[in-house]
Amino acid sequence: MAQGLKVLTAVLPQDVKLETQEYDLGARRWHATGETLPDAELESLKRHDAILLGAIGDPSVPSGVLERGLLLKLRFAFDHFVNLRPSKLFPNTTTPLAGRPDIDFVVVREGTEGPYTGNGGSLRTGTPAEVATEVSLNTAYGVERVVRDAYERANARPRKKLTLVHKNNVLVYAGHMWKNIFDKVGQEYPEVTTDYLHVDAATIFFVTQPERFDVIVTDNLFGDILTDLAAAVTGGIGLAASGNINPTGDFPSMFEPVHGSAPDIAGTGKADPTATILSVALLLRHLGYEQQAARIEEAVAADLEARWGHLPGPSGQGGGSPRSTDEIGDALAARVAG
Amino acid sequence: MAQGLKVLTAVLPQDVKLETQEYDLGARRWHATGETLPDAELESLKRHDAILLGAIGDPSVPSGVLERGLLLKLRFAFDHFVNLRPSKLFPNTTTPLAGRPDIDFVVVREGTEGPYTGNGGSLRTGTPAEVATEVSLNTAYGVERVVRDAYERANARPRKKLTLVHKNNVLVYAGHMWKNIFDKVGQEYPEVTTDYLHVDAATIFFVTQPERFDVIVTDNLFGDILTDLAAAVTGGIGLAASGNINPTGDFPSMFEPVHGSAPDIAGTGKADPTATILSVALLLRHLGYEQQAARIEEAVAADLEARWGHLPGPSGQGGGSPRSTDEIGDALAARVAG
Ligand SMILES: CC(C)[C@H](C(=O)O)[C@@H](O)C(=O)O
Ligand SMILES: CC(C)[C@H](C(=O)O)[C@@H](O)C(=O)O
Repeated sequence: MAQGLKVLTAVLPQDVKLETQEYDLGARRWHATGETLPDAELESLKRHDAILLGAIGDPSVPSGVLERGLLLKLRFAFDHFVNLRPSKLFPNTTTPLAGRPDIDFVVVREGTEGPYTGNGGSLRTGTPAEVATEVSLNTAYGVERVVRDAYERANARPRKKLTLVHKNNVLVYAGHMWKNIFDKVGQEYPEVTTDYLHVDAATIFFVTQPERFDVIVTDNLFGDILTDLAAAVTGGIGLAASGNINPTGDFPSMFEPVHGSAPDIAGTGKADPTATILSVALLLRHLGYEQQAARIEEAVAADLEARWGHLPGPSGQGGGSPRSTDEIGDALAARVAG
Repeated sequence: MAQGLKVLTAVLPQDVKLETQEYDLGARRWHATGETLPDAELESLKRHDAILLGAIGDPSVPSGVLERGLLLKLRFAFDHFVNLRPSKLFPNTTTPLAGRPDIDFVVVREGTEGPYTGNGGSLRTGTPAEVATEVSLNTAYGVERVVRDAYERANARPRKKLTLVHKNNVLVYAGHMWKNIFDKVGQEYPEVTTDYLHVDAATIFFVTQPERFDVIVTDNLFGDILTDLAAAVTGGIGLAASGNINPTGDFPSMFEPVHGSAPDIAGTGKADPTATILSVALLLRHLGYEQQAARIEEAVAADLEARWGHLPGPSGQGGGSPRSTDEIGDALAARVAG
């Protein structure tokens, strides 16, 4: 987070006054007070232009508590229906894929519906007669707005290609609704080429033909799975940025790395801040600072090139000795300021 | 299918009398009669020792009709709760992964519950006010039996390692039940090392460290997604076999390739029958013909080696001119008979 703010400060024009407020949320807070996201803080967060979120989670907190009580609570409270996750294979990163395919796509993941709504329950919990359900909730309202956003993004890109990923041969109710809305909205975008893939087949193409994708629109859970896989094939989770966007502007959008909090190396100076810094670029783009966003992305590309030669970051790129979290932040801040 | 039967016939000992019955099910039947799986045929299928299923599906049939009316109907009616999907990187196949990691794991996918139960619905279908739900149903009964099966399989393998894959930080009801049962049953298998991964993280390891997996147990939908990805990284979907197993023996188990029906090349002699032939090996192993199963698997390995040198199959392995469906079947039948 410190490196993200460092780069943000360095890249902003002199006449832009940056006001920041820090919120102490996450595992430490929960241990100290039992709170995840009190109402007062949620209210306060509403007043900002944007939120930069540090990765959350710690094995000392029961699974689900922070995810649902903090991260998902923010996504739902601020109606972040566009979960934007770009995937680009920078020229100088390692990829597990042979042949280094040309990868440059964006996943538009729905962020406020599907199996993430917390709908479900458990009966006779802990007994041999237990039944547990999880309900995926999907509305035409929710699907149409994210599908439309994805068409807009596809239409603005040179290749103008949009792929819907779902599993409509099994999840027929939600799947058919998604497909029908996808086809209907598509009529308004005659220049966009469309495509449909089942989620299982999509994972195959992610590793065998990732260059076929331009923009992908998908459900909350499928998007979660696909974007981790996308990060893995494009240089690793250490580089994957994301935006939780409310395109209406009614609430602040929120930007965060796709990766987790890596509690095992917290404070050791080994964490790679690049994904957070790329999330700052997405934040700037969202607020209209396109030039500054691009400058950060170019700096990261140049920095990776340098690492590749002799100075690898903790994500393992290149040879030579790894730089610390701070050193990577400094290097990027210097590049964007220059 | 013809090649599968050819190899099955060739490998069986002389004194074993093979009785087969063919069922005409799938797209053609549906077009002709509107039927997917009539009760009489379901009853008749029950009487066999095992079922070999040709890949189903055709774009001329609405998505979901054959999947739910035929394939899933069989899996549910015959209580195929262990959907067994081995992944092995044969020495002589192409993989999209750089570095050719040593991959040899088995996914035990739950086959009768989760989001596959057909539970869900749609309200105000086709209107802007539509709501569609999909319900994942999970029972302690269903989870425990598949988890136990997976422990048995892990315990019988040299590495004795079992990984549970779920998403219990979001799908807390089903996820916590899976995790609790996984931990509880694990106490009976002190020699098995266990591990838990969220499904999104699992996809990362499938491409960056697939050698870490030995046996994986997971939910129906996550298993669907992970096994397509597994097939992609281990030589492609043209080699992936699967068994839908009812370990109690109350109903016949069913074996099928993981891939689809490839309607675009049906009848052209271009389809690679290897996945079906490897499914025959799983069928034989299930019925106690371990030696014959191993012989088929060795024949496939040897055949891939030959293709790699000069005779590629349609899945694109090796160089030279592709062999026809028939030629591959003949080559494998000759090897197993010899
Ligand atoms: C931490 C978890 C709740 C979250 C999600 O599943 O959305 C994460 O995996 C992500 O992709 O942002
Ligand atoms: C065809 C489809 C219903 C099926 C599934 O989702 O189980 C297939 O993808 C599979 O993996 O066997």
